Amino acid sequence: MAIVRTSPLGIVSTQFYTFGSPNEGLRLECGQNFGPITVAYQTYGQLNEAHSNAILICHALTGDSHPAGIHAEDGRLGWWEIMVGPGKAFDTDRYYIICSNVLGGCKGTTGPASTNPATGKPYASNFPVITVEDMVRVQKKLVEYLGIDSLLAVVGGSMGGMQALAWCQLYPESVRAALPIATSPSLTAQGIAWNEIGRRAIMADQNWNGGNYYEPGQARPENGLAVARMLGHITYLSEESMEYKFGRQLRQKDDYSFSFNIDFEVESYLQHQGEIFNQRFDANSYLYITRAMDYYDMTRGKSSLTEAFANTNAAYLFISFSSDWLYPPYQSELMSKAAREAGRYVEYVNITAPNGHDSFLLESEHQAPLISEFLEKIFKG
Amino acid sequence: MAIVRTSPLGIVSTQFYTFGSPNEGLRLECGQNFGPITVAYQTYGQLNEAHSNAILICHALTGDSHPAGIHAEDGRLGWWEIMVGPGKAFDTDRYYIICSNVLGGCKGTTGPASTNPATGKPYASNFPVITVEDMVRVQKKLVEYLGIDSLLAVVGGSMGGMQALAWCQLYPESVRAALPIATSPSLTAQGIAWNEIGRRAIMADQNWNGGNYYEPGQARPENGLAVARMLGHITYLSEESMEYKFGRQLRQKDDYSFSFNIDFEVESYLQHQGEIFNQRFDANSYLYITRAMDYYDMTRGKSSLTEAFANTNAAYLFISFSSDWLYPPYQSELMSKAAREAGRYVEYVNITAPNGHDSFLLESEHQAPLISEFLEKIFKG
Repeated sequence: MAIVRTSPLGIVSTQFYTFGSPNEGLRLECGQNFGPITVAYQTYGQLNEAHSNAILICHALTGDSHPAGIHAEDGRLGWWEIMVGPGKAFDTDRYYIICSNVLGGCKGTTGPASTNPATGKPYASNFPVITVEDMVRVQKKLVEYLGIDSLLAVVGGSMGGMQALAWCQLYPESVRAALPIATSPSLTAQGIAWNEIGRRAIMADQNWNGGNYYEPGQARPENGLAVARMLGHITYLSEESMEYKFGRQLRQKDDYSFSFNIDFEVESYLQHQGEIFNQRFDANSYLYITRAMDYYDMTRGKSSLTEAFANTNAAYLFISFSSDWLYPPYQSELMSKAAREAGRYVEYVNITAPNGHDSFLLESEHQAPLISEFLEKIFKG
Repeated sequence: MAIVRTSPLGIVSTQFYTFGSPNEGLRLECGQNFGPITVAYQTYGQLNEAHSNAILICHALTGDSHPAGIHAEDGRLGWWEIMVGPGKAFDTDRYYIICSNVLGGCKGTTGPASTNPATGKPYASNFPVITVEDMVRVQKKLVEYLGIDSLLAVVGGSMGGMQALAWCQLYPESVRAALPIATSPSLTAQGIAWNEIGRRAIMADQNWNGGNYYEPGQARPENGLAVARMLGHITYLSEESMEYKFGRQLRQKDDYSFSFNIDFEVESYLQHQGEIFNQRFDANSYLYITRAMDYYDMTRGKSSLTEAFANTNAAYLFISFSSDWLYPPYQSELMSKAAREAGRYVEYVNITAPNGHDSFLLESEHQAPLISEFLEKIFKG
């Protein structure tokens, strides 16, 4: 069965911007100067004359620079197709939308699989440990290159929301509004724990080989990355949605296999998720990006969350989802309270939705009008 | 620092009972005849003349036959010391308490690490895939051997609770009361998923070697088992208790290491849990026991949970814990409703406790009086 994929945006190509050099690189949080850095990005719509309609979309852990349209190379629809396009929440008839792959990623932006100019080989484990702030500094360079001093809005779900928050902190004069969705000011102990287990699974795979698995024909740490992905996947769903989708449904209707083969539909689903993830993601990027998530802490160096927001200038729309237990709604509530206390304009909505953390990618009925009305308000000033 | 461990029960020795042979074994659910089977067990208190005061305690996934007292061999206190002893919930002055290691385990009862008499080598992956019902059939043999026709009560938390339920189904005339604690009539899709990921992590470890790692000096699948244990551990705690215990506390107070070494206390805790688990548990047992948990389904072959309970004769005390998200309280509520509809005597209490699924091992303030009053009621008839 051929799946016909259509998008009002048609075919979209990824573009690339490179800056810096080994001698004059970006100063990272870890203290290292790092360069050159190539950024993979896509844009939609037109930048207006005042350069005041630019919106930056930041992706989550395993996302890329392709939120909408049909990918020129592989024909894939974007990961936020429901939200980005003409007349959609991020209305491409009205706004100029930018989305780039994060530093440390594996979708075109410089990451551990990229060639280290000093050695001619992939960075692998010599890639520096980066932070969400480093990702944002790279995005700032791109945004400047595109001729934009001030963004109308920065938006993102999950780790994308952390980037939106970091933008407000690092560049308070360059962000008019932020939409941190299904996110938190820092991971909980449980969030750090899930990430750590994913990393241990990858590093325990013999094929990880200290991060060096990029030689042609060399085996990759596919088992470890699959385990990390399977684990992550459960945390993105809700118990309720898993029960609804799979329950205890068996693959073979008649009986148990009395083996360790796949008996349950949920096992089959997870195995499939692990397999397809290996085709599209690099294990080292998984290590580096999850570490950046662990490290992100909006209150770091501040006495309180309120103080953190007091040093920002943006208007905020926080959105959380009732069944999201990875980034629980109470964290968005805490942020909205703190931002209000700090004198910021704040809207906060907790959307009742059954699909757990993934709701931010799936739900548009309530999310889309909230976003478009908020953006219109800010745009009109 | 020497930790002095004391118990009113003093030193307790494990005993062993062996039955069956390769020719005349136990008929397992998978269809195989399996024997001989050795059962490791401990007893506390005295069986009365009427043989009417015997209580069987069933352990959870990684437990053993040593719930209380000081272990004769290694000096360990039992895993349910807070509940078992003179004057405690399971009052050894009053009741005769039995606890055995489950079939498939690695604490003295026949399991994958045991010697296969047909080959003189460990069963390893030739061990049959067993079920909770098979574990219970083995316990029944032990209980008969100890001269007991009818148990006053069968009790267990988590997988132990599944065994208590299976006892009521398989031997309705031999169980006067059941105390299924922090358990469910069958795992949810999410529960099966956690188990499957743990198994994948073990099997992905090169040292698992198809289950054959028992030769002297041979490396064991320690990385895989550690990942499985770390993962399991998070599901036994609550987000709240992890936040309280660890939060984002760093090991080195000053700063991040900007590496994949341990930065956060929660990472250190998990790594430690993985390491100590490897010292006390066998990876193959982890595979077989989690599979038995997946397969347990009280409603299998029945039209409803009510019908399942209608075929039992026990009185029930269900206990759940408010913060347990692995075996959520709603499942105990469903069971208590169904058992009542089936005409059974039922008590159900959801205890407000912060420690997640582990609460059944830690909480005694509310749990202990509930249990002792319920047992007294049943014992007096």
